[in-house]
Amino acid sequence: MLPTELATRTGDYSLRRAVAADVATIVALLAADQLGATRDSANDLAPYDTAFRAIDTDPAQQLLVATDADGAVVATMQLTVIPGLARRGALRMQIEAVRVHESHRSTGLGAAMMRWAVDDARLRGCALVQLTSDKTRTDAHRFYERLGFTPSHEGFKLLL
Amino acid sequence: MLPTELATRTGDYSLRRAVAADVATIVALLAADQLGATRDSANDLAPYDTAFRAIDTDPAQQLLVATDADGAVVATMQLTVIPGLARRGALRMQIEAVRVHESHRSTGLGAAMMRWAVDDARLRGCALVQLTSDKTRTDAHRFYERLGFTPSHEGFKLLL
Repeated sequence: MLPTELATRTGDYSLRRAVAADVATIVALLAADQLGATRDSANDLAPYDTAFRAIDTDPAQQLLVATDADGAVVATMQLTVIPGLARRGALRMQIEAVRVHESHRSTGLGAAMMRWAVDDARLRGCALVQLTSDKTRTDAHRFYERLGFTPSHEGFKLLL
Repeated sequence: MLPTELATRTGDYSLRRAVAADVATIVALLAADQLGATRDSANDLAPYDTAFRAIDTDPAQQLLVATDADGAVVATMQLTVIPGLARRGALRMQIEAVRVHESHRSTGLGAAMMRWAVDDARLRGCALVQLTSDKTRTDAHRFYERLGFTPSHEGFKLLL
């Protein structure tokens, strides 16, 4: 259930659903990322606001933000539940767009968010949690493996 | 638009949306797969029928089947459109559960299905098409690379 507290070794954070007023801050988190820097910018928020409404009104989507003790948004992730026939008609949860502000990394926040996502997947009856991570993000790969994820798949992308 | 013809070098196939009566055949395609053999079976279709209804009523999902000249279902794939904030609020299309019956492989059918999926992603305004493939499926990886996909990501899974 959200909102919820995420206790870490360096302090307490809260996790909640994103609201429209969070969009600019989430975009700044995406743009601050090394790989996102050329793709995203908060200069023109209109396309992001439109996308936010599409996410927010889709019951399969959860766009979440973590806030610090001052209520500032310092991290984000998006969870999508996808139905399928494989694995006896299993639901799967997909995690996308995980970003933690650089001043809040190595605090345990990212791990606490991922553990919450996995617990939420269990509550929703998912049989599987999946995500892809750019091959250059080797620190992130160790992070996901420590959380129990297996790098069993090749992740293919085609830009249109 | 569906249904549509998929002309290949060995014959003509049709692509259409799956209907409830296709579920057993789709499950048989999943179970015939080397990796799916331990996970899926058409002995008890009830969980698959439930999953089919969830897929079929979700406007973000397209479960498709290809049929041969006799109308037999010989291949399947599932397309999911996922909204997101990244890349200026881009939609992405995800392809899951691509299976072609072994007697219809190397006919160009799989490539024709993937090209249709990519065209459909463009029509829907997606900025990206993505999929993951088990690392043991090296033939499939060459197939996706020939179609223009880049193996840029590590694909992580966590079974619950």
